[in-house]
Amino acid sequence: MTEAKRRIVILTEGLSNPINAKTAVSVIRYRTEEVVAVLDSTVPPQTTQRLFNVGGNIPVVPTLAHVPAADTLLIGIAPQGGKLPQAMRAAVLQAIQRGMEIQNGLHEFLSDDPEFAAAARQHNARLVDLRRNDEHDVARRQNLRPDCLRVHTVGNDCCVGKMVVAIEVTHGLKAHGVDAKFLATGQTGILIEGHGCPVDAVVSDFVNGAVEKLVLAHQHHEVLLIEGQGSLIHPAYSAVTMGLLHGCAPHALILCYEMGRTHVNGLDHIPLLPLDQLIALYHTVANVAHPCRFIGVAINSRRVSDAQYREERARVERELNLPACDIFRDSAAPLVEAVQSLRTASCN
Amino acid sequence: MTEAKRRIVILTEGLSNPINAKTAVSVIRYRTEEVVAVLDSTVPPQTTQRLFNVGGNIPVVPTLAHVPAADTLLIGIAPQGGKLPQAMRAAVLQAIQRGMEIQNGLHEFLSDDPEFAAAARQHNARLVDLRRNDEHDVARRQNLRPDCLRVHTVGNDCCVGKMVVAIEVTHGLKAHGVDAKFLATGQTGILIEGHGCPVDAVVSDFVNGAVEKLVLAHQHHEVLLIEGQGSLIHPAYSAVTMGLLHGCAPHALILCYEMGRTHVNGLDHIPLLPLDQLIALYHTVANVAHPCRFIGVAINSRRVSDAQYREERARVERELNLPACDIFRDSAAPLVEAVQSLRTASCN
Repeated sequence: MTEAKRRIVILTEGLSNPINAKTAVSVIRYRTEEVVAVLDSTVPPQTTQRLFNVGGNIPVVPTLAHVPAADTLLIGIAPQGGKLPQAMRAAVLQAIQRGMEIQNGLHEFLSDDPEFAAAARQHNARLVDLRRNDEHDVARRQNLRPDCLRVHTVGNDCCVGKMVVAIEVTHGLKAHGVDAKFLATGQTGILIEGHGCPVDAVVSDFVNGAVEKLVLAHQHHEVLLIEGQGSLIHPAYSAVTMGLLHGCAPHALILCYEMGRTHVNGLDHIPLLPLDQLIALYHTVANVAHPCRFIGVAINSRRVSDAQYREERARVERELNLPACDIFRDSAAPLVEAVQSLRTASCN
Repeated sequence: MTEAKRRIVILTEGLSNPINAKTAVSVIRYRTEEVVAVLDSTVPPQTTQRLFNVGGNIPVVPTLAHVPAADTLLIGIAPQGGKLPQAMRAAVLQAIQRGMEIQNGLHEFLSDDPEFAAAARQHNARLVDLRRNDEHDVARRQNLRPDCLRVHTVGNDCCVGKMVVAIEVTHGLKAHGVDAKFLATGQTGILIEGHGCPVDAVVSDFVNGAVEKLVLAHQHHEVLLIEGQGSLIHPAYSAVTMGLLHGCAPHALILCYEMGRTHVNGLDHIPLLPLDQLIALYHTVANVAHPCRFIGVAINSRRVSDAQYREERARVERELNLPACDIFRDSAAPLVEAVQSLRTASCN
């Protein structure tokens, strides 16, 4: 990850919706100054503000030729299974032929693709496969500093806001002078933060260990906000969630969920659990690793009206006895305060 | 995996104890007719019966030269982290130079080692890395046959007998005419059964999917006995255990534990949970995937007297209200009967 400012085009070809393009949306949100355009030939030219509700006047362009100054192509999607869609190959190849750096967070590695690898050699283009790793450490649950507070965002499903909540709470704590640090555990977080651990691409025997190593390397900070992945009830990804939860052995959890979602994303035959049952499940499983409790709820209310959100927030606060908020509709302040309260309680 | 009878030497150099050499012990137990010797220059020549309490007159030899007829060298250990001990390199290289096939279940792949790979090419030796896989399917929890009974062995720790219990219950069911099938999920099980899924070497996003695929491929059988791995309370391996548990979505669980063990193997600062709490934890987590209950307890009593075992068995049966047995000291009959009872109940 270079420190010099990049000029990034984000490729979302044919998949410019909030679920598939969540990597694009978050990179636009947190790396705004580096993003010069979004590339999707299947939607009319417009701003990313119009397309994704973020990014202001950043343009959505139909071809790479529209952004001659761009030096980096970033694959802006996060599909189940992590394969590169066929429709994206042409744009990736063009970018390679222009000598651009390609940032790829998919499970499918571009540097393993003979056509891309050959083109990259020929045109001196750099292929960065963010998920490539060689983690081989096993967790031992030792040497965790008790005075570094570990807060972990968990959810009832994928794509509910676990990463953005961790980032926004980190920002909120920093604004209050707390030495807080966001720990990225997925491709998008790593793109935003510049480093982290791609836990879902680590060999399963070493997931807990890779996460523990990440925590041990950063526990000189006062508070760690550790990005969650998947959910304990996800048919496909519960192993990832479990390794992350036990690897980071959190003191505190923040529950993230999206209003209106009733079933696992993409698996309409798998109903989600009621929040109280979900909290009980996470509480039981987390406490195997370390004494841990929920300190707040992050409501993703993007699909509902303000009135519906206000009603939901009141209900959640009342029924679960936890502070709750939509970090974008309101702010992360209630969650920041919850972390601060826990710090105060720990010091006394 | 060839069908022709192999002549196997099992390498346990310097690690001929029940925990480290568990792969050796189980291969000797279930592939007795194929094992010609155990290779360990650090122990006196003796029989494997004396060294491991299994295998009859199979000799333990100090050098490969003692077994000129052997055509296969099997790495007989399962260390934490899965690396090849330095002390084993010489014997592996000698075997390669003899043109033998090397069966390796470690995380460290022999075919990635430049010295071994070059020697194998030169001497036409086959390097089989059992854990190498390219699993890339995500689980969907669909198309599971309700009339195929899925029974999963789980434990309070590593090395407590989850694999042997699954095998012995499979054998017991077959002896009663039931079409039962053992599904191997680890290196030793795969060596014994000839196929399976090395779940702990699968990339974490695909663990649940790899296990589900294994189940879907074998659900034409009446009963599947799915080998467990690690434990939900293991600091290092809980992600593996979770992916396996949710990927196979069992109807029934058998709890395996070793008498006298108080802490996680190799992690003396991590106490094990009392059995009733452990059962509650597994029950909660398993029922996320599929309605599931415990049907029996497998007691590993290798370290205690017969009287101590009898007392423990009575206590466990009384307190947990489940049939219990040591499958080797007694037999797996109580567990076989428990599976049969469940089948009868399901049919009515």
